[in-house]
Amino acid sequence: MIRWRLLLEFDGGDFAGWQRQENAPSVQAAVEEAVFAFSGERSLVQGAGRTDSGVHATGQVAHLDLEKQTSAETLRDAVNHHLRPLPVAVLAAVPAAPDFHARFSARGRRYLYRILDRRAPAVLERGRVWWVPRSLDVAAMQAAAQRLLGRHDFTSFRAVACQAVSPIKTLDRLDVRRVRSEVWVEAAARSFLHHQVRNLVGTLQFVGSGKWQPEEVSRVLAARDRRAAGPTAPPQGLYLTEVIYEDQAE
Amino acid sequence: MIRWRLLLEFDGGDFAGWQRQENAPSVQAAVEEAVFAFSGERSLVQGAGRTDSGVHATGQVAHLDLEKQTSAETLRDAVNHHLRPLPVAVLAAVPAAPDFHARFSARGRRYLYRILDRRAPAVLERGRVWWVPRSLDVAAMQAAAQRLLGRHDFTSFRAVACQAVSPIKTLDRLDVRRVRSEVWVEAAARSFLHHQVRNLVGTLQFVGSGKWQPEEVSRVLAARDRRAAGPTAPPQGLYLTEVIYEDQAE
Repeated sequence: MIRWRLLLEFDGGDFAGWQRQENAPSVQAAVEEAVFAFSGERSLVQGAGRTDSGVHATGQVAHLDLEKQTSAETLRDAVNHHLRPLPVAVLAAVPAAPDFHARFSARGRRYLYRILDRRAPAVLERGRVWWVPRSLDVAAMQAAAQRLLGRHDFTSFRAVACQAVSPIKTLDRLDVRRVRSEVWVEAAARSFLHHQVRNLVGTLQFVGSGKWQPEEVSRVLAARDRRAAGPTAPPQGLYLTEVIYEDQAE
Repeated sequence: MIRWRLLLEFDGGDFAGWQRQENAPSVQAAVEEAVFAFSGERSLVQGAGRTDSGVHATGQVAHLDLEKQTSAETLRDAVNHHLRPLPVAVLAAVPAAPDFHARFSARGRRYLYRILDRRAPAVLERGRVWWVPRSLDVAAMQAAAQRLLGRHDFTSFRAVACQAVSPIKTLDRLDVRRVRSEVWVEAAARSFLHHQVRNLVGTLQFVGSGKWQPEEVSRVLAARDRRAAGPTAPPQGLYLTEVIYEDQAE
C-alpha cells in the first residue's frame, strides 16, 4: 500500500463542488473514478479543501492509498488520461508518508479571487472572474483589507451554514492589487470559515465601489453579524491556489 | 452619418472566424446584428484583421457608419447588450474621422500566441492555449525568433491559400518568454501573411522541443518553401491583441 499526494487543477464551473454527493457531479468522484479506471481499486480521494460549487483550483491537494505498484509519472498520466474530457487534471503525483493527510496535515491555504472591473462584460474570462461593471478603487480596497488581518471572530464573514466549531480565525494575508484589467485579491490563512473569502471580497467590493469607506470594515468585523457585511461574491472568481504543509520548504 | 471606431474582444472558439460567411457564425455578423438591433440600420462592420476560425482577439478594431445620433457610451453598452450571450464584447467605441478605415488605416498589428508546456492537459486554459505536453526551451526559441526579424520573403511561413500579392513582409518583433507555466510568443508587423504567426510558432515549437537548433530557422526562411518549415500551430493559442494607427500616441 502506498499513500500518494496529488496536486490538482480543476474548473469548478462543471461541478457541484469538490465533495462527492448523490446525483450531482463532484471533482472528488471524478478523480476517484479515474483512479479506479487505472487501478481497479476503489480508493477514497481526500482533498485538503472542500471547495464549493463553481469554485476553481490551481493548487488543490488530495491523498489516496493504492495497492497497485506504479511510478508517480504513470499515476499522473494515467489518471489524466481517464479524467478526459472532464476539466480536471493531476499536475503532479508524489509518494507521501503513510500518515500524511491532505486535509489534517495542512498548515495553510491560499486563495485568489479575480474581479474584472470594466463596463464591457467578461468574454475570454467568462466563468473565470466576477464581472463588476464599474472601475474599483484598489487602494481603498487594500486599505480596508489590512484592517481585517490577524486573529478575529469572523462571524460577519461566515456563511450561515458554516459547520466550523469556532468563528475565530487568523487571517495572515489579504492583499488587493490591479493585474492588467482585473483586481486580484489574495488571501492566506491556516484555515478559513465557509464562504469566508467570498464574503470578504463582497465587502471589499463595496469599499472599491465607494459605497463604504475603508474604515467601515472594522465596524463590520466588530458587529459579529453576517448581515453587517457585504454580499457573498460569486464562486466563479475564486481559486484555491495553494495548500501548505510542514514538510514544504517553498 | 457618424463613423465609429470599435475596440473588440472575442472568443474565437465559437466562430468560423471574423469574416461574414454563408451558413457559419462569424464575429462580423454577430456585431452587425447587434448594431442593427440597437439602431435599425444595416451597417457594414469592417474589421482590421480577418482572424481565422478559432483565433481570439483582445484588441480587434472595426469601424462602421451610423445615421443614428448616440453617445460613445450608449453605443458600447447597447451593442454589448444585444451581443449577449455571444462571447463578443465592445471594450470601447469612439467617433472616428470620416476617412478612418479599420483595415486600410492600420499601421501595425500585434499578436500573442500562448503555449502551455506541461505534462498535464490544459484545464482552466482549455481553448485558450496550445497544449504541448513537454517542457520547451524558451532561450532556444528566443534565439531562433531573432533570426526571423526584419524584411524577408516569408513564403516558408505562408499558408498555401494566402491571397497576399507579395510574400515579402517586415517582422518588427518576435519575442518568446516564459509567463508562469506558459510560453508566450509576441509578434508585431505592419501586416502578416495568412497563417504567418501560427506557422512561425509551429517552427519555434520544433526549436523549443530540441528537434531543430535555433540556427536552422535561417535555412527554413531561405528555402522559401512552406514544406521546409514546421507545422501550423492550432488557432486557440492565438490572440489579435492590438491594431496600431498613425493617430495613436500610445
